[in-house]
Amino acid sequence: MREEKLIKATWVLPAWDREPLYQGAIFIRKERIIEVGPAQELRERYPAVPVEDLGEALIFPGLVNAHTHASMTIFRGLAEDLPLMTWLHEYIFPVESRLRSEWVYWGAKLALCEMLRSGITAVCDMYLFEPYVIRAVEEAGVRAALGEGLFDFPSPGYGPLEEGLRLTEDLLRAFAGHPRIRVMVMPHAVYTCSPETLKKAARLAERYGARLHIHLSETAEEVSQCLERYGRRPVAHLEVLGLLGENLHVAHAVELTDEEIELLARKGVSVAHCPESNLKLGSGVARVPEMLEAGVRVTLGTDGPASNNDLDLLSEMRTAALLQKGLRRDPTVLPAREILRMATEEGARALGFERCGRLEPGYEADLAVLDLTRPDLAPVHDPLALLVYSARAGAVREVMVAGQWLMREGQILTLDEEETRHWVAGIAQEIREFLGKS
Amino acid sequence: MREEKLIKATWVLPAWDREPLYQGAIFIRKERIIEVGPAQELRERYPAVPVEDLGEALIFPGLVNAHTHASMTIFRGLAEDLPLMTWLHEYIFPVESRLRSEWVYWGAKLALCEMLRSGITAVCDMYLFEPYVIRAVEEAGVRAALGEGLFDFPSPGYGPLEEGLRLTEDLLRAFAGHPRIRVMVMPHAVYTCSPETLKKAARLAERYGARLHIHLSETAEEVSQCLERYGRRPVAHLEVLGLLGENLHVAHAVELTDEEIELLARKGVSVAHCPESNLKLGSGVARVPEMLEAGVRVTLGTDGPASNNDLDLLSEMRTAALLQKGLRRDPTVLPAREILRMATEEGARALGFERCGRLEPGYEADLAVLDLTRPDLAPVHDPLALLVYSARAGAVREVMVAGQWLMREGQILTLDEEETRHWVAGIAQEIREFLGKS
Ligand SMILES: [Zn+2]
Ligand SMILES: [Zn+2]
Repeated sequence: MREEKLIKATWVLPAWDREPLYQGAIFIRKERIIEVGPAQELRERYPAVPVEDLGEALIFPGLVNAHTHASMTIFRGLAEDLPLMTWLHEYIFPVESRLRSEWVYWGAKLALCEMLRSGITAVCDMYLFEPYVIRAVEEAGVRAALGEGLFDFPSPGYGPLEEGLRLTEDLLRAFAGHPRIRVMVMPHAVYTCSPETLKKAARLAERYGARLHIHLSETAEEVSQCLERYGRRPVAHLEVLGLLGENLHVAHAVELTDEEIELLARKGVSVAHCPESNLKLGSGVARVPEMLEAGVRVTLGTDGPASNNDLDLLSEMRTAALLQKGLRRDPTVLPAREILRMATEEGARALGFERCGRLEPGYEADLAVLDLTRPDLAPVHDPLALLVYSARAGAVREVMVAGQWLMREGQILTLDEEETRHWVAGIAQEIREFLGKS
Repeated sequence: MREEKLIKATWVLPAWDREPLYQGAIFIRKERIIEVGPAQELRERYPAVPVEDLGEALIFPGLVNAHTHASMTIFRGLAEDLPLMTWLHEYIFPVESRLRSEWVYWGAKLALCEMLRSGITAVCDMYLFEPYVIRAVEEAGVRAALGEGLFDFPSPGYGPLEEGLRLTEDLLRAFAGHPRIRVMVMPHAVYTCSPETLKKAARLAERYGARLHIHLSETAEEVSQCLERYGRRPVAHLEVLGLLGENLHVAHAVELTDEEIELLARKGVSVAHCPESNLKLGSGVARVPEMLEAGVRVTLGTDGPASNNDLDLLSEMRTAALLQKGLRRDPTVLPAREILRMATEEGARALGFERCGRLEPGYEADLAVLDLTRPDLAPVHDPLALLVYSARAGAVREVMVAGQWLMREGQILTLDEEETRHWVAGIAQEIREFLGKS
């Protein structure tokens, strides 16, 4: 590995709040960005450093997928257009009860191939058998904040809850100080975790200075069930249990009152907005403009590929913007810059990657490269608009994490896509046989 | 050109209401489909016919983009996140007043490259200098229903309205009986065309047995303006003027009352639903489930790339489905089959291409091929779900229209993409200079 390199392209977009640079370059030493500027200047300043010319392309900060269940690629398209309870009880839960570590491992690898192709450099993942997701993440070379999904009923991954907490603690110890992997404590939701479980999770996170991740207020049913059981809505429930704080990252947050939005903002809680999953499952639309107005840190997530049905964060960016514009009947709502902020810097901060999400001196060299030779990315009136409103997964040609190329000229360097597809095809066949669908 | 060929792939989806065929094949003679069935059987039945094996792929009916302004690719990303009136009056209208035939020609060619890559085999186009779009369509080899946009104020394309009607009439004569190009009469909208203009357009269409295309009830403003000027809503306005009928195809139809939906259904009017453009411009969401329930023929369109910002009908299919599921809070609304119906058979019928939109004996061989070796299209639990919910433009590898390959192994055979991008880049530069943005 070369210690220093200079990468250049026709366009560099250093951050959501910066103007794009025409004929820009980035000087990288090991895993860090040292300088960003006009290609000509940087070449003159560092004449001995090898230059990699990416040609007609846009270099942008790597995207952060702030909520997913990567391994659920194995269920993609398995059961469509069904009521939520039919989908869960007749398909997902029965199959998940048979879940095996190797399914999780290969499912995660397939997901990582797909995410790299969408320009994702960091991901927040919650699932079962999470150590096998970690193995896939280590092979892929991406950045990840992840944890074992914890709930009260016995898990195919770890058995009884106490084992899940122990597993989480083991992982917290094992990956302390890891340059790219951050373990989080991940109670699944208020309807699958008792108050006692939630408190245990919070205490564990506190003891290790770790972050917490939970599904919160995803559906109206969740809210009414929580009201019925505990006499309070999910946000108040977490407040009473002491979970609301700067280390809490919640997924969905569709059903929020004004007061709840204010409370999340005041407590420094971050939200992973997953618009496509919320639409597809019929959950509704999160109040993103109000959250931003109140100062909530809003990030973007794809959610799992069984309810989306992709891991394309570029598509999620576009959907997030279009949806609010259309429903508010105002094309100025959620402009492109705000969307890119959510998908980069805000996502990185929510996951605790403080030096990611911008291409600036001192930041990690986590970036992606958009191929501007495609007909759907021409002409280049506005590189930011192309990225947010016109780009999609297949248009990303290169991805770098911590100064290392993970994808180059459309080829993933760290994972074997062909082998992964082959394994997942076999797993998918097993799943259909078990369900009697094949 | 070979007179007969057999194409095969791991999956063939013959139509929206058919089950996908595993290891299927299609036997094509000249521009027609003769037979669709298991590859093994067809090979045995036609042993002398050369076989083209498309491998791990899904052959599906070519998509129909039922409303667009293709040449507006030259404006893609030019002015984003602005109020509609600022966007129109400070950007689009000033530049369109300078519009030149060569801009329209190259803009349309770029659009056609993009549309082929999204699996579109037929398109409905309305713009200015439409003969230059026709030239591009003829080069590309796609199927198209198109016409010059007509309005009361002088057009940069044809000058005074009478010339626009004359141009339309000339085109109707010139392309009568053309195998792939159908000329339509296209008054722009009720707010840009006087009642007299609309009546003239209707008479012209009647005289030639042609179809009519118009923007209708796109925004609340259009409705209130029409009420103010004519004392009736746009649908009633067209009814009074005698335009509602089986030869009328309208774009958008966002603002409809129950009675208007009933009326459109009864009169046999078809609607091009353009959900992404409606969202992006802040126009709202069309009442698609009610239209389908009432029996309105609903088709799908991308609208122009200046308000979308792409021509990806696969993305439009997904957005159409997700949007209604989310807003109705019901994941069973607009299932994948219904969406594919809109994007194929219904689109073809609305444009008057009666033998398109299905892969069945006697139908035109208009089809597209999805590459199933991509990580975002694995595993194959359900080919239909992959097509509607997971596929996007870049995943289409082959396109055939009337038995001729227009794209093969990701290469467009009929247009020069590189040259087209080059010309459009130059035009884009001119546009920015004129606007003082460069
Ligand atoms: Zn989730
Ligand atoms: Zn239009």
